[in-house]
Amino acid sequence: MSEYITHDTAEKSVGKVEKKFFTFAEPPNEMLLDSGAKLGPITLAYETYGTLNPDKSNVVLVLHALTGDSHAAGYYSDSDEKPGWWDNMIGPGKGVDTDKYFVVCSNVLGGCMGSTGPSSINPATGKPYGMDFPFVTIGDMVRAQKALMDHLGIEKILSMLGGSMGGMQVLQWCVQYPEMVRSATPLATTMRHSALAIAFNEVSRQAIVADPNWNQGDYYGKKNPDLGLSVARMIGHITYLSDEAMRRKFGRRLQDKEDFSYQFDVDFQVESYLRHQGAKFVERFDANSFLYITKAADYFDLTGFKNTSSAIRVFSMASARFMVVSFTSDWLYPTYQSREMVKAMKKSGLDVSFCEVEAEWGHDAFLMPNKRLTDLIRGFIDSVYQHDSE
Amino acid sequence: MSEYITHDTAEKSVGKVEKKFFTFAEPPNEMLLDSGAKLGPITLAYETYGTLNPDKSNVVLVLHALTGDSHAAGYYSDSDEKPGWWDNMIGPGKGVDTDKYFVVCSNVLGGCMGSTGPSSINPATGKPYGMDFPFVTIGDMVRAQKALMDHLGIEKILSMLGGSMGGMQVLQWCVQYPEMVRSATPLATTMRHSALAIAFNEVSRQAIVADPNWNQGDYYGKKNPDLGLSVARMIGHITYLSDEAMRRKFGRRLQDKEDFSYQFDVDFQVESYLRHQGAKFVERFDANSFLYITKAADYFDLTGFKNTSSAIRVFSMASARFMVVSFTSDWLYPTYQSREMVKAMKKSGLDVSFCEVEAEWGHDAFLMPNKRLTDLIRGFIDSVYQHDSE
Repeated sequence: MSEYITHDTAEKSVGKVEKKFFTFAEPPNEMLLDSGAKLGPITLAYETYGTLNPDKSNVVLVLHALTGDSHAAGYYSDSDEKPGWWDNMIGPGKGVDTDKYFVVCSNVLGGCMGSTGPSSINPATGKPYGMDFPFVTIGDMVRAQKALMDHLGIEKILSMLGGSMGGMQVLQWCVQYPEMVRSATPLATTMRHSALAIAFNEVSRQAIVADPNWNQGDYYGKKNPDLGLSVARMIGHITYLSDEAMRRKFGRRLQDKEDFSYQFDVDFQVESYLRHQGAKFVERFDANSFLYITKAADYFDLTGFKNTSSAIRVFSMASARFMVVSFTSDWLYPTYQSREMVKAMKKSGLDVSFCEVEAEWGHDAFLMPNKRLTDLIRGFIDSVYQHDSE
Repeated sequence: MSEYITHDTAEKSVGKVEKKFFTFAEPPNEMLLDSGAKLGPITLAYETYGTLNPDKSNVVLVLHALTGDSHAAGYYSDSDEKPGWWDNMIGPGKGVDTDKYFVVCSNVLGGCMGSTGPSSINPATGKPYGMDFPFVTIGDMVRAQKALMDHLGIEKILSMLGGSMGGMQVLQWCVQYPEMVRSATPLATTMRHSALAIAFNEVSRQAIVADPNWNQGDYYGKKNPDLGLSVARMIGHITYLSDEAMRRKFGRRLQDKEDFSYQFDVDFQVESYLRHQGAKFVERFDANSFLYITKAADYFDLTGFKNTSSAIRVFSMASARFMVVSFTSDWLYPTYQSREMVKAMKKSGLDVSFCEVEAEWGHDAFLMPNKRLTDLIRGFIDSVYQHDSE
C-alpha cells in the first residue's frame, strides 16, 4: 500500500488509541505451525476501537495487508502527523462505525510492529531469530488471531474485512474457524497467489538477499539491508498503482527541473516518488519480516486447506455471508480472480454479493477514501448486524 | 526480451554470419550528442544478411531492443547452440526474406556487444569509460546508424523494423532522416515512454547501483555487480510477460518438489525461471550499458524532437509508409499507445496501417514465432518493394 490518504477531519477519528500486547503459546504449549515447526511464546500487538457490547455481538475484525500493522485508526499521541492506516474507514459514523461496533486489529505473526517475528528475541539464544524464525503461513497468522479472540472472550465475529493479504486472512478465517465468522469482506484479493504476484514477491526478496548487509538475515545491531529493502519497496509500489494511475499522477513530468539532467539523477517525478517511498519504508519495516510475509502470501492457496484441491469444496466449509470487492484498475489481484472466488462461493451455496468498484488507483484503491466503498462496507455490516438482532 | 524462441529449421537460416565493425567520428570530428557532449571515435558492430542489389533499393534495417545486439539472424559457427535473436523472422523465404532483401542490424551506441559504450576504452584515459561515458539518446543511436548507412553507401532504406526500444529507433529515424526511409514498422512500442515504463527502468537501475560491486560504475577488471544486474533482469522479465502468459507458463506449479519447502529456496517454477534468467543475463550484458540504455529509453518522447510538443507536428516531418503493430497482451507498451501513434500519423497525412496481433505472451510476443506477424511483415515489405519497382 502506498501513502495512506485519510480524511483530515480529526473530530471524526476514534481519537487517542493505545497499542496493547497479548502473549500466549508459552513453552511447552507452543503453537504448532503449518510447516510442522513449533513457535512460542508468541506476542501479538493489537488495538481496539469502540466498545464491546454486553453480549459481544458487535465485533469487527480488521486484517492488515503486507506491510500494515495493528494501528488501523486513531492517533497514539497529539503529535502524530498521521492517524492509523485505515482511519478513513474506521471511526465514529464511518464505514466501520465505532459508535456501533467494537473493532479489533492485530499485527500479523511474522511482522515487525510488535508481534512476534524474525526481529524478535529467540528465547533459545537470547538474540533475534533472524533466519531461525520458523516459516509462517496465512493459516498460522489466523491461528494466532484466534488465540487473541479467545483471550478477549470473543466467540463470534460479526464481520471481518481486509484487503490484499488482509483479504487472504479473511478467506482463511472463514474456512478455518467457520463457526466464528458471521460475515466477511475480502477486498482486492485472491484465493490463490498468481504466478505474476509470486514473481513480483520473488524479485523483491532477491533484491533484499542481494544486499550484502542482509548477511543471511543476521544484521540486527549491525547495518540493515536498507538498499535492498528499498528496491523491494519500489517494486511493490509499482504493483500498487496502475498504468492509468501513474499516467495521471506523474505522466512524464520532470522533478524540479526544466530539462533532462543527462545524468543518473532523478529526472522524472515518478523516479523521485519511488526513491522516496523506498527510503521511507526502511525506517519502519524489517527486511526479514518482508521475506517471511511475502513468502506466506506466495504460499497462499485456499484450496490447499485440508487438501480439498477445489475452491467449491473448500468454500463448502464456510458459513459466513460474503461481500467480495474488487477494483477496476487493480492488476495485482485483478477482478477476474474475485469473480472466480465468487463463482465458487455461489456454487458451494454461500450467500455472497460481489462488487467491482470503479477506481483508477490500481491495487491501492482499497485504502483510498472512496464513498462507494465506504457505503458498501457500512451497508453490509449494518445489514448483518440488524439481521442478527432481529 | 526473454528466451528467443526460434524455428529450428537450420536449412531456412541465413547460415554462417560474421560480425563486422565500422569506426567513425575520429577526433577532432567527434559526434555531437543530444546532451551537448561529444563522443569519438565510435565503433558500431553490425551484421548483414542477403545481398545488396545494384541500385541499392533492397535495404531492410532491423533495430534491436534494450538488451539485443547486431546478431539478428544466422550462426557465427557450427557449434552455436542458438541462432541470432530474430532468426524466426529473418532468412530465406521468411518474413524478412534474405533471398530478396539486404538486411542490416547494428548494435546500438551505448551497448556492450561490440559497439562503443561505457565498457569501451576511453581514449583519454586508456581505461573503460564507466560513468565517464556521455549520455546517449535514441536520437544519438540513430545518428550513429546513419553514419553506418553512409559508410555502406546506402541512401534509401526500403523498410525498417524493430520492436520495443527498436521501435523507438524506427520512429526516430522516420523524423530525423525522413528522406531516407520509404517504409517503417514499429512493433510493440510507444512514441513516448510512460510513467509505468520509466518506473520499472528506474527500479532496475536502483537495483544495480545498490550493488556495492557496482562501485560508481568503476568495476571493470574487478567484481561485476552481478547480483544487482540479475535483479534488474528479473524485473524486466516480469514486464516482458503478462499475467495470462505467466499463468499458462507457470501457474503455481512447484519446481522439482511435491510440497512447499518452508524455506527460502525456490518453491515455484516462476521463481526458478526468473533466477535462471537473471543468472544467464549477467554473463552477457554490461551493467553500465543497462543503465545508459534504459535511461535513453526513458528520455524517449518523439514530440520532444525539434520541440514540436505535438505528435501530429512531429509526424508531419515523416514521409514513410507505416505499419504499426501492437500485441493484445503487451502491458509494457499497451495497444492504446500504438493507437495514439496511429491517430497522430493519420492526422498528419501519413499512409499508415495498424494491426493489433492476438498474442498471449505479453510484450515478448514481438519476438516469438507468429505466423500472422510473419505474414504481415512479409506482405508489407513486399508491397513497398513492388510499388517502388513499378
